[in-house]
Amino acid sequence: MDKYKLELVSDNSKYIQIYNHIKNLIAKGEIKEHEKLPPIRKFADYIAVNNATIVKAYELLEKEGYVHKIVGSGTFVSSLNIKKSTNKIDIEDMIHFDSGNPSREMFPIDNFKAAINMALEKDGASIFEYDEGKGSNELREELCLYLKDKRINTNKENIQIISGAQQGIDIVCKGLINYSDVVFVEEPTYNGALEVFKSRGAKVIPIPMLQDGIDIGILKLKLEKIKPKLIYVMPNFQNPTGISYSTYKKKKLIELAEKYNFYILEDDFISDFAFDSSDNRPLKSYDTNNRVIYIKSFSKILMPGLRIGIIDIPIELQKKILWAKYSSDISTPGLIQKSMYYYMKYFNWNNYLKNLEKIYTEKYRKTKSLLDEKLGDKLKISKSIGGLNFFVELPRGYSSQDFYEFMVKKGVCITPGTYFFDNIMDDRFFRINIANTNLEDIIRGITIIENNLQEFITYYKNGEYIRSNKIFY
Amino acid sequence: MDKYKLELVSDNSKYIQIYNHIKNLIAKGEIKEHEKLPPIRKFADYIAVNNATIVKAYELLEKEGYVHKIVGSGTFVSSLNIKKSTNKIDIEDMIHFDSGNPSREMFPIDNFKAAINMALEKDGASIFEYDEGKGSNELREELCLYLKDKRINTNKENIQIISGAQQGIDIVCKGLINYSDVVFVEEPTYNGALEVFKSRGAKVIPIPMLQDGIDIGILKLKLEKIKPKLIYVMPNFQNPTGISYSTYKKKKLIELAEKYNFYILEDDFISDFAFDSSDNRPLKSYDTNNRVIYIKSFSKILMPGLRIGIIDIPIELQKKILWAKYSSDISTPGLIQKSMYYYMKYFNWNNYLKNLEKIYTEKYRKTKSLLDEKLGDKLKISKSIGGLNFFVELPRGYSSQDFYEFMVKKGVCITPGTYFFDNIMDDRFFRINIANTNLEDIIRGITIIENNLQEFITYYKNGEYIRSNKIFY
Repeated sequence: MDKYKLELVSDNSKYIQIYNHIKNLIAKGEIKEHEKLPPIRKFADYIAVNNATIVKAYELLEKEGYVHKIVGSGTFVSSLNIKKSTNKIDIEDMIHFDSGNPSREMFPIDNFKAAINMALEKDGASIFEYDEGKGSNELREELCLYLKDKRINTNKENIQIISGAQQGIDIVCKGLINYSDVVFVEEPTYNGALEVFKSRGAKVIPIPMLQDGIDIGILKLKLEKIKPKLIYVMPNFQNPTGISYSTYKKKKLIELAEKYNFYILEDDFISDFAFDSSDNRPLKSYDTNNRVIYIKSFSKILMPGLRIGIIDIPIELQKKILWAKYSSDISTPGLIQKSMYYYMKYFNWNNYLKNLEKIYTEKYRKTKSLLDEKLGDKLKISKSIGGLNFFVELPRGYSSQDFYEFMVKKGVCITPGTYFFDNIMDDRFFRINIANTNLEDIIRGITIIENNLQEFITYYKNGEYIRSNKIFY
Repeated sequence: MDKYKLELVSDNSKYIQIYNHIKNLIAKGEIKEHEKLPPIRKFADYIAVNNATIVKAYELLEKEGYVHKIVGSGTFVSSLNIKKSTNKIDIEDMIHFDSGNPSREMFPIDNFKAAINMALEKDGASIFEYDEGKGSNELREELCLYLKDKRINTNKENIQIISGAQQGIDIVCKGLINYSDVVFVEEPTYNGALEVFKSRGAKVIPIPMLQDGIDIGILKLKLEKIKPKLIYVMPNFQNPTGISYSTYKKKKLIELAEKYNFYILEDDFISDFAFDSSDNRPLKSYDTNNRVIYIKSFSKILMPGLRIGIIDIPIELQKKILWAKYSSDISTPGLIQKSMYYYMKYFNWNNYLKNLEKIYTEKYRKTKSLLDEKLGDKLKISKSIGGLNFFVELPRGYSSQDFYEFMVKKGVCITPGTYFFDNIMDDRFFRINIANTNLEDIIRGITIIENNLQEFITYYKNGEYIRSNKIFY
């Protein structure tokens, strides 16, 4: 029973605090799958609240898919699932502004199938053997041409094929970061990277993002005091803010990396498209002195389920990162590598990208103007100039967790901003991602937010539902 | 020049010492790709040897593919490549007892192609989306049936699909092992696992292997003193020794895990076949108390380039390991997962395995009897009762590194035993792996070893080539 103990804070709804506490216990594995939660009365007595408060907490946990009731037995923790609990809520036409999965209508399925069959026919058994090196020669050559279009001059020896950008972050970390090394990150940033750095025992130091990229002033101050091995950045259309670095800041960051002798880990998922920016060049294209480790993801511009990506690696780091790749999964499947090669070479890769750029740019612009028009008077919207993400700020005194829970019930899923900060200091931001939603749904989703925003603002200040006759649950 | 400094030991050929030193500098990244090695005369003066000694060391490095000469310029470090340098030696009919790559003639290419096309037709776009969970439901269900045949009773919730067994080791380590945690391993063991544990900052403690499995006596003694989080084992046809645990030891190990509260990480790559053992059951099939984390590889029994495998995970660890998988590469490609599913379900998986068992058993028995017959009087051969690996012991005073270098020149590649020990205390063992060689080549390879063994024994004692008129290089 000990683990269920919690100190309730008075300025926040109690059942939400209990709900969060149990959610955390489940996340940390301190309450196991199929474990029974304490009986309502016993728990209520234990932490000195009304029975009804526990009931409400359990109901919310059930709604969110964490637990389930078994009649006559009690409430039990449900099966483990890393997926966002919201996927379990049975609202068929939920708008998913929380998903980074590009919508499948854009997948070039037919051509890619043809490419797979070319690989099977032309390469036969060889694609099913171990491949212990940097990956397919042909694919790496082809990728050099692709990178050249992005003004990155490299050669295939510098290219390591990886099983997606997440693996890129993971193996760079594994190859370079030792226990207690320092890693700088943008704040906010991609949570999947944060977790990798922390899991390796790195000390993570966040540097705030401004409207034109990372805060160079604060970065310099920190650099005077502490030496990072690495800074992890997304210089174009950052996740979650959508912000791009100015050309000045891109160059400045490289300059600082040279001066203070650290590496820049660039995570590029969508610099292929200009959107409304004047400079969508990867940082790597400005890197004349081998300070940038460049990860290119194909998850947003092709198909995420392929799990393929590349790293362009400064020569002195290649051995370590190759070792890290090898010790992680030996190699990326030959079938995937060779299919990717044939697809890029024989199926109009550049036309495909141009077409996709049109679709994405239209979606981006429409969303941007809708957000400004419909929510701009009540909420602050980050200065994105492209991409798939918009970061939105609630007024002071409101919580994105509350907003998330409130909006789910209205049929819109957003991602609470706490997900993108290392320390949950400020819980006022949320992210809207439009990868998985079409124009029609975007309009519908933003309209739902617009229509319900006043209700949220009226009743949810300081996490305390203002007493009224309204029944929320 | 500092890094080139080395202290020469008198009881070992000097040029070999220099060769090893430079090889290590390259491996550690202290000498970079394309870096020029010191000029011969300068280097010779620096460490006080004859010019000829440096020449011989450089020649050997070149032969092994580490460096290349550029006429008029000097000797330069060659492109980085994790592959064993021996692959570069241009002997076309080299016998590769060093490769664990199953020979491609055994790959069920046509049926697997058909399975891939089933996946493309039936599942379409869905296999190219993110898949953030434990992996394909259908595949996990199918795998439960397969595991049932191995007397492992589990359910699909316990199964995590992984991108090969190496990833299995990596994510279990990532999920469970923190800096300075203790991991026990068999000695000798699989090097790819050792590296993962050490890279995470774990303290690795080796427990010797005996003819019937791990040394339970020593294991108990260690357990009295130190508490491991994990022990990493291959209870059937171990790599590199080929040794299997007796049923008694299998049960005993589980008993100890319960008593001392640690987990067993079982790496199973070929328990599907009985060979000459009376008990090829996985440890997991004896595990009634959820102490075994069971990794099943398909690299040796299907095709390694697929990069697919599974872990059967005790319930209380699932969340952590699922997180580790997610943060490593999000998921295994849907295309690979679904193709595997259709292959197992519709293409006579069991018959395929039975047929493969016949081929492997024949190869195993033939190799075993040849080794005994042709080398048994001079060398000790480990008590394997099946599998693909044989571990052989040279007489005292001989080095497997020397043997490796000697045999490469005769046309046979073996793997020096140092590869499988954490501390290179004893360098007398080597591994013969027959995955990639057919019967004819096995006979030829063992005959070459037989024919040259006396020469090696005569001239290579204590690493010092006995002076004679023979010219080895």
